[in-house]
Amino acid sequence: MKSTMMDVPLLIPEIVERARNFFAEREIVSLVAGKNEQGQPVAQTHRTTYGEVAGRALRLARALTAAGVQPGARVATLAVNSYRHLEAYLGVPSMGGVLHTVNIRLHPDQVCWIINDAEDQVLLIENLFAGMIPTIQAGCPSVKKIVVLGPLPVPIEGVDDYDTWIMQHEPQTRYPEIQETDAAGMCYTSGTTGNPKAVTYSHRSTILHSLASAPKDALNVGQSDAVLPIVPMFHVNAWGLPYTCSLYGAKLVFAGAFSDGPTLAKLMQDEQVTITAGVPTIWMGLLAELDRAREAGAPYRLPLERLVVGGSAAPEALIRAFWERHQLKLAQAWGMTETHPLGTVSVLPPDVGFGSDEGFTLAAKQGVAVPTVQLELLSDDGELLPHDGKTMGRLIARGPWIAGSYFKGTGQSNFLDIGGQQWFDTGDIATLDARGFMHIQDRAKDLIKSGGEWISSVDLENALMAHPTVLQAAVIAMPDPKWDERPLAVLVLRPGAPQPSHAELTEFLAPKFAKWWLPDAYEVVEAIPIGATGKFLKRELRDQFSEKVAGGTAVR
Amino acid sequence: MKSTMMDVPLLIPEIVERARNFFAEREIVSLVAGKNEQGQPVAQTHRTTYGEVAGRALRLARALTAAGVQPGARVATLAVNSYRHLEAYLGVPSMGGVLHTVNIRLHPDQVCWIINDAEDQVLLIENLFAGMIPTIQAGCPSVKKIVVLGPLPVPIEGVDDYDTWIMQHEPQTRYPEIQETDAAGMCYTSGTTGNPKAVTYSHRSTILHSLASAPKDALNVGQSDAVLPIVPMFHVNAWGLPYTCSLYGAKLVFAGAFSDGPTLAKLMQDEQVTITAGVPTIWMGLLAELDRAREAGAPYRLPLERLVVGGSAAPEALIRAFWERHQLKLAQAWGMTETHPLGTVSVLPPDVGFGSDEGFTLAAKQGVAVPTVQLELLSDDGELLPHDGKTMGRLIARGPWIAGSYFKGTGQSNFLDIGGQQWFDTGDIATLDARGFMHIQDRAKDLIKSGGEWISSVDLENALMAHPTVLQAAVIAMPDPKWDERPLAVLVLRPGAPQPSHAELTEFLAPKFAKWWLPDAYEVVEAIPIGATGKFLKRELRDQFSEKVAGGTAVR
Repeated sequence: MKSTMMDVPLLIPEIVERARNFFAEREIVSLVAGKNEQGQPVAQTHRTTYGEVAGRALRLARALTAAGVQPGARVATLAVNSYRHLEAYLGVPSMGGVLHTVNIRLHPDQVCWIINDAEDQVLLIENLFAGMIPTIQAGCPSVKKIVVLGPLPVPIEGVDDYDTWIMQHEPQTRYPEIQETDAAGMCYTSGTTGNPKAVTYSHRSTILHSLASAPKDALNVGQSDAVLPIVPMFHVNAWGLPYTCSLYGAKLVFAGAFSDGPTLAKLMQDEQVTITAGVPTIWMGLLAELDRAREAGAPYRLPLERLVVGGSAAPEALIRAFWERHQLKLAQAWGMTETHPLGTVSVLPPDVGFGSDEGFTLAAKQGVAVPTVQLELLSDDGELLPHDGKTMGRLIARGPWIAGSYFKGTGQSNFLDIGGQQWFDTGDIATLDARGFMHIQDRAKDLIKSGGEWISSVDLENALMAHPTVLQAAVIAMPDPKWDERPLAVLVLRPGAPQPSHAELTEFLAPKFAKWWLPDAYEVVEAIPIGATGKFLKRELRDQFSEKVAGGTAVR
Repeated sequence: MKSTMMDVPLLIPEIVERARNFFAEREIVSLVAGKNEQGQPVAQTHRTTYGEVAGRALRLARALTAAGVQPGARVATLAVNSYRHLEAYLGVPSMGGVLHTVNIRLHPDQVCWIINDAEDQVLLIENLFAGMIPTIQAGCPSVKKIVVLGPLPVPIEGVDDYDTWIMQHEPQTRYPEIQETDAAGMCYTSGTTGNPKAVTYSHRSTILHSLASAPKDALNVGQSDAVLPIVPMFHVNAWGLPYTCSLYGAKLVFAGAFSDGPTLAKLMQDEQVTITAGVPTIWMGLLAELDRAREAGAPYRLPLERLVVGGSAAPEALIRAFWERHQLKLAQAWGMTETHPLGTVSVLPPDVGFGSDEGFTLAAKQGVAVPTVQLELLSDDGELLPHDGKTMGRLIARGPWIAGSYFKGTGQSNFLDIGGQQWFDTGDIATLDARGFMHIQDRAKDLIKSGGEWISSVDLENALMAHPTVLQAAVIAMPDPKWDERPLAVLVLRPGAPQPSHAELTEFLAPKFAKWWLPDAYEVVEAIPIGATGKFLKRELRDQFSEKVAGGTAVR
């Protein structure tokens, strides 16, 4: 029997209308790149409101329609976090378009490949990246219009200025007919193997993701908050925060191209930021600045209630440091491009205090699936594994905002049919416990298989990063004639720290791990190679060190 | 272009599985009717867990299937708030059935009429109401099985004991194929005019309603909360709290058949309740008990963060009293059976403090539409009216958990087509302001039309209830030869309070209203007639007093 409820689709225009009407006066603050009197680049503050941004978003919507963009067509952005990028988030889906947020850290050739694969028709490009325009003009035939966000020192042939362009159009007054399952957003995976693959988010998945992100057991967003997403808007929709904040009227604060600790700390203090989100590297930089300021006798006064950390696992030592030195709570979240991204949030059960040892242990796990996301573990034989907190398996996910395929049908092997249900294979190796706490052990490809058993590189890395001399650690598998693979730890030391001995590190790790987990060798490097999404490029490390092994250089 | 997201339906089994797995140890506390050593009825405390309840719910699911209940069939409850009722909430939709929660305050003839209209196949009836069983057995041929919740002093012929019955069945292990738009719950409107009409909630609407209820700008529910829904589970699903709490793992506290101030205050203290929800009458009783205890030098220690008030408007005086005397925040919410019910919540904008005059004024309004609910105002000519905070119009609503029709197609005139979109006519007269704050002025049928202008009975009532002598006030329209209608205020005085004069009341109201709004007359009565859902029966009052007028008795 069908229910008597209305058939009302879940659409992004709902977000635009709330922003425009209910939260018209609520502020949106962006750091933009300016110059000081000496001509040096400095951060300047731009202030606008949801009312202004939503109005401009609807001008953008009409401008796109006037430019011949049809519903379903892709509109690309190559932009930092700012109010103009937010206008694209709200405006492009409002005319039925698909917002394709391109990663600015990619090589121009990769950018072209992705734009061509997506068949983007319009490109909104930040003035900072204007140098890429000739490459795109030459290499991307689908792009019929390039629009520059922010002023240009000199005009570029065949390119529009965004502000001028949108102000030539009145705000759109009627939304087109949109189905809730229509595509609204598009993101490419980082693609460490093979070509990048794209997923497209729907209006439905975006609204559901926004609703599920708001509760206190997720990201805790409300109208009284000021939210600073440091995670880039070109990276999985900045974890959905631009949409969640617009739906609930939280003040949005954007750091533009800035990500250093001092700029972020000052911005958080100036704008009274209550919620922020970013990758562990960002928090390491912030922590250093907070430590410095406190030691200098001028600590920041931050009303931060929650620092959401994702992208990769936050070491327990980092979570402890923020809490013990600054009474700030890091909350771990896990997700991927294919999961929109919110999959889990590490919210402690009511019987576990945050500052306790058990609390830190749980806080360093990835957390519990948010409502409507289902997680399971799969064995190599395709059997479901127990949720006992110990058994490691391939993490698979299912839910209304999880990808069921890739754009153009690539990467089919990542999607499984289990008992007639669709599941996405995350490529992560994880454990799940009885209360649902998920703990990533490794990327399947980074897992170390020693004597037929699995060793988690992530666990070793997090433990090593708690050592006083270690800034960063990457643990990789090295070929071993007897055990097949054995762990090698690659370390970046803290500035000025003495080099720890093999024995000292072994002794440090020994209480936490089985003996056969301990790295056979340690290598100290200046820097660990990092990919476009800020993650360690372990494949490069493996190549680098296996040559060394093959070449006969003794690894300490 | 369709998105690449999975097609995963939103289903109540998601709630059951989270309760069963993630929150298995989380407590559910119910007051049940017991007897003390002297044989007097007293409240006893029953404790169980989500794990137990979900397991028993899945036994109920299998027992229903074994009894021949098919997906889509209606299973009725006549029950108070308790863990067994929660088992029905979780179990019935898990086997594809439709949970029909019958109002226990109705006359047995009305109960039979509703059960027959719904064609209920199974009835789960609280032992307290066993006296109704013979009437139902005789008058409700569709009911093929009656099951009693809780022990009976003597068995009744042809009736099962719930605990015994469900324990004869193993928990269901597979959910049937369910579409998200399938009916999952059924509620009848109070039906003050004509026969009651039913709406059926879907799996989709229930999940969306639960997701949208959790954020802090709605009901603020999370795993660390203890939630006491005093609003009955037979009344619009206790405002969805049984589902929202089960989805998020909040401890649930049920008061059973108890609703007096002392029992509730003690329960809130004992169980450390953080969120509670009920109609204004309940809060008046609680306030009296909190006042009494404080004056007796033994104040309660309540960790209450939010008291949600709905069902009818909370007078500003009540909101002030809770805040000023007990530092407790009443949060107004508005909804109806046809809106699942969550339509608006009065969450103050960040620039308005709760304890300020502006804060109290806003808090006494019904609040802002929660995400995905749309509200508009309609003139008598069917035109959309401005959101200026002043213009009164018929409140219409649209959204994915708003009714689009009634069961069996009755009451078609309540559903409007506006520009190809479906809207529900709430029958309320309201204003909307620029920030979205909705303020109910009256039920359309209770509105007083004086000289072609509208007078809000609700506003006058709330103002009168702030007078120190007035306990309750109902303002009704009386026929008037010159102005068509004029307001008459019917008052219940506080115990022992002196009778206020007409002049005193006029003087009290004068600063707040236009002169022509002030009641022409006041009548003091012992009690105001109240309907099955706790609302004033103004029709009865009008009948009573119009006879008086017609009969020539001077109204003071």
